[in-house]
Amino acid sequence: MIYEEPYTLPYYLTTQKQTVNLATLVNMLLMGSEHQLDQLGAGVDALLAHGLGWVITQYEIKINAMPPVETPLVLGTQATTYNKLMTYRDYWVADLAGHKLATMRGAWVMMDLDSRKLVPILPEFPEKVGAVSDTLVQRFSRLPKLERIDVDVPYRVRYFDIDGNRHVNNVHYFEWMEDSLGYDFLSQHDIESVQIKYAREVTYGSTPHAQAQIEGNTTHHQIVSDGVVNAEATFVWHQRD
Amino acid sequence: MIYEEPYTLPYYLTTQKQTVNLATLVNMLLMGSEHQLDQLGAGVDALLAHGLGWVITQYEIKINAMPPVETPLVLGTQATTYNKLMTYRDYWVADLAGHKLATMRGAWVMMDLDSRKLVPILPEFPEKVGAVSDTLVQRFSRLPKLERIDVDVPYRVRYFDIDGNRHVNNVHYFEWMEDSLGYDFLSQHDIESVQIKYAREVTYGSTPHAQAQIEGNTTHHQIVSDGVVNAEATFVWHQRD
Repeated sequence: MIYEEPYTLPYYLTTQKQTVNLATLVNMLLMGSEHQLDQLGAGVDALLAHGLGWVITQYEIKINAMPPVETPLVLGTQATTYNKLMTYRDYWVADLAGHKLATMRGAWVMMDLDSRKLVPILPEFPEKVGAVSDTLVQRFSRLPKLERIDVDVPYRVRYFDIDGNRHVNNVHYFEWMEDSLGYDFLSQHDIESVQIKYAREVTYGSTPHAQAQIEGNTTHHQIVSDGVVNAEATFVWHQRD
Repeated sequence: MIYEEPYTLPYYLTTQKQTVNLATLVNMLLMGSEHQLDQLGAGVDALLAHGLGWVITQYEIKINAMPPVETPLVLGTQATTYNKLMTYRDYWVADLAGHKLATMRGAWVMMDLDSRKLVPILPEFPEKVGAVSDTLVQRFSRLPKLERIDVDVPYRVRYFDIDGNRHVNNVHYFEWMEDSLGYDFLSQHDIESVQIKYAREVTYGSTPHAQAQIEGNTTHHQIVSDGVVNAEATFVWHQRD
């Protein structure tokens, strides 16, 4: 079932382009789905009662235009299908005329919070939000390994990178990946698409590095801390007018 | 004249305490006044037409409770008085029962954007928002110099620290000052009051240091870059229950 709600991004989240960054885009899209889950009794608290939590494995984001601040928008989301180990969800943000500014697709798994191991999806949760059982495993693009490290920037984890679940919120990886590209690149390019795959949580007290390989309008990224990869991503950009 | 508007902080700006941090509190309060200024034709764009901009010199903030996320709140503001060189404005955030969660008082000056020099207040701007001409110079607490540096943490300026005016937004100083106190202090204390005085803009490409002297429940802060002080502050805290 489709869920939509009105939302206006506050001015204080603007970038110098008068839009928001990737981290805020994803935060906003996830807020829509959290509101749906809470309204249907399938939210974080309901899942916690089973000793379980949701873990994101992969997002694919397509961006026609980064959402502007101080402009009425509509957030939308729909849990689509689930199989034994994964559930899939679509997200979008549109203007009031119904034009989609950005869409996102995510693949989620369930984790036992005691053992920290993945467990089969508890069907009542996707069913509550209208997802359909389907053995199909949705495809996401393969992410190439970095062949070369063109930029390598350390980001000490800060206190406010910790979220309400007392974990380093992985949305911050987007801030680090974008920032690592530097002022000139970011001023001159707008983002078109994102593929990101999460591998391992970043821990408080660590200093992850955002590493990137820049190939024209495509940038390949990884977040690495303590010798392990936390996430990999590929961004596609175009030159700003 | 008093301006008020409803506002709900989004979940994605939560700290692990389920409230927001100082930077978000100040951002939210300023948003209220920007909306008032825009509605009355006295906003950033109107002032820019005169080659002028507002510059904050000092804030005093009193906090009964940091605002919770996902809870309907009311933002309020009132430009109070102005004299030859300063205008003063009050800000508050209240719950729906009218209880003020936090209040802020600010002293603003006008700057000529070409010469980067302070100029006398153009009276039509404070008059438009109902401020009263009054020669009284409002007092703000004096801020002591640091006698000792207990913590000293570098914060490289990031691309997204630049705001819609293409300057490093000085609200980020609050993030740096708070973060510099570290996980244990921040987890165990809640903030009660803030005095901050701005001296000089931080520039993109620099790495300001947040330095602090910790005296029990009082912390004295300064932001220093390239050998000059950008801002000084004193925060008062209490132990969390």
